[in-house]
Amino acid sequence: MTEPSSAATVPEPAAIFAAWRERTDAALAQALSALPDARLRAAMRHAALLGGKRIRPLLVYATGHLLGAADDALDAPAAAIELIHAYSLVHDDLPAMDDDALRRGQPTVHVAFDEATAILAGDALQTLAFQRLAESPLPAEARIAMVRELARAAGAEGMCGGQALDIDATGSGGAISLDALRRLHAMKTGALLRCAVRLGAIVGAADRDAGVALDRYAEALGLAFQIRDDLLDIESDSATLGKTAGKDLAQNKATFPALLGMDGSRAALAGLAEEMHAALASFGERAAPLAALAREVVERDR
Amino acid sequence: MTEPSSAATVPEPAAIFAAWRERTDAALAQALSALPDARLRAAMRHAALLGGKRIRPLLVYATGHLLGAADDALDAPAAAIELIHAYSLVHDDLPAMDDDALRRGQPTVHVAFDEATAILAGDALQTLAFQRLAESPLPAEARIAMVRELARAAGAEGMCGGQALDIDATGSGGAISLDALRRLHAMKTGALLRCAVRLGAIVGAADRDAGVALDRYAEALGLAFQIRDDLLDIESDSATLGKTAGKDLAQNKATFPALLGMDGSRAALAGLAEEMHAALASFGERAAPLAALAREVVERDR
Repeated sequence: MTEPSSAATVPEPAAIFAAWRERTDAALAQALSALPDARLRAAMRHAALLGGKRIRPLLVYATGHLLGAADDALDAPAAAIELIHAYSLVHDDLPAMDDDALRRGQPTVHVAFDEATAILAGDALQTLAFQRLAESPLPAEARIAMVRELARAAGAEGMCGGQALDIDATGSGGAISLDALRRLHAMKTGALLRCAVRLGAIVGAADRDAGVALDRYAEALGLAFQIRDDLLDIESDSATLGKTAGKDLAQNKATFPALLGMDGSRAALAGLAEEMHAALASFGERAAPLAALAREVVERDR
Repeated sequence: MTEPSSAATVPEPAAIFAAWRERTDAALAQALSALPDARLRAAMRHAALLGGKRIRPLLVYATGHLLGAADDALDAPAAAIELIHAYSLVHDDLPAMDDDALRRGQPTVHVAFDEATAILAGDALQTLAFQRLAESPLPAEARIAMVRELARAAGAEGMCGGQALDIDATGSGGAISLDALRRLHAMKTGALLRCAVRLGAIVGAADRDAGVALDRYAEALGLAFQIRDDLLDIESDSATLGKTAGKDLAQNKATFPALLGMDGSRAALAGLAEEMHAALASFGERAAPLAALAREVVERDR
């Protein structure tokens, strides 16, 4: 494979990422425009179409690309996983949860609309994710495998379960163990990132060896994502993040910097970057977009 | 077919309903016991396992029964649709929505646990519904058809969309038209009841004519269910209902009694009972459970 940090490969992923982000936006807009024109749809559009890094859809496309899948076969799972992510943000921002007024530099859904509408918009975004998978133009076996992966990643075994553990742990500061914190984040953010890679692998019909290597990549990526998130919450400001900075400390949340220190967290990030690099080694040049996403997750400033 | 009001057939549906309710409870308990043992799961169990009429699962079993499907092929869709119903109740009861403290004679989830946990429990119950369908032991084509039906019924085109319209209409009293109120309830409660029948029809591989007749039955049942609900809110008391009575009037909600009067609503109910009877006429004796459910919906006192 090409050296992922070599300057020559950087322009290509940037261009392909822009194209994939456009495909994601178009797929999301299409899914939403099929719904009845009502206040609920406006709230759903606010949640799903006002930007965001689109890391999860990019992982779907990049993994499918690696396996030779066509982009248009990846549109439905890319949109579906972003709909799940968008719903989780709407509910996380609610007053009873993180009580956040700012997201992606915009008022959160319950601020722009109202709390009841935000609850329903999140609910309907989740439903729409499964509907898109069910209606995608792929063999029934692939569609049902994707529904299963997405449900396992999003539910009580994954994202929702991790979020609930995070609420239980909030206020505990450094009081939970590093193992417990890793497990919490493997569920809360890791499961959906891993799922993005698995959806691409299902569409691309990955064989067993490829599946194992991609899982190894995705697991490291999920953990790296969270450590970088924790570091940004301390190092950055709200304007750059597009959301409120410094919240973890204010809420006395258990974080990797709280358990490992800043230097220890940065060292862990570097180790995970190597892990991802190694996991992609056997795939050659077609892994360049996944390698670029690994760098993006480790180096991002928002 | 047997005369649905004849005394001879009554014991049989009652016994079969008890058996199907037991199957539903067992399928729900099994789905929930597979999740990590945590506070979130306890909240989900509180929402899904503390009783309820189980009308939607009974519709799944009764429709499958009519078409000759085996009960164990119907367990997953029966559990899935009840999980969707349970999630919707948890979110409807939230302070930002109906703000209800009592449900099935028990404290609501946000009262028994807390608001954040109730939001997450609802979210995870919805996810689990799709997971159960995806993991059910049926051909992939049938599973994906069920995911699609359930998503369309539960989302912005169905239940969530109807709930949002209901919020918009609350406070308007009789100010919305009868047509608008029918459309609202066709989405809010009708879509999921119709979906229950369709899930049974998918498992039972209904032909086109049977599908049309069953849809006609289900549409009348959905409307009858809501008219009866509105009447009960006026006629009954909280102890009998297991939830707060008199809320519609207190919240100045648009209801069928507000638009049609009590007598007009009762007459509409009687007409719908005839419509359901006619829709089932061609099926003969195997339709006895569906006919009994029609009576149950029209005559229920909670």
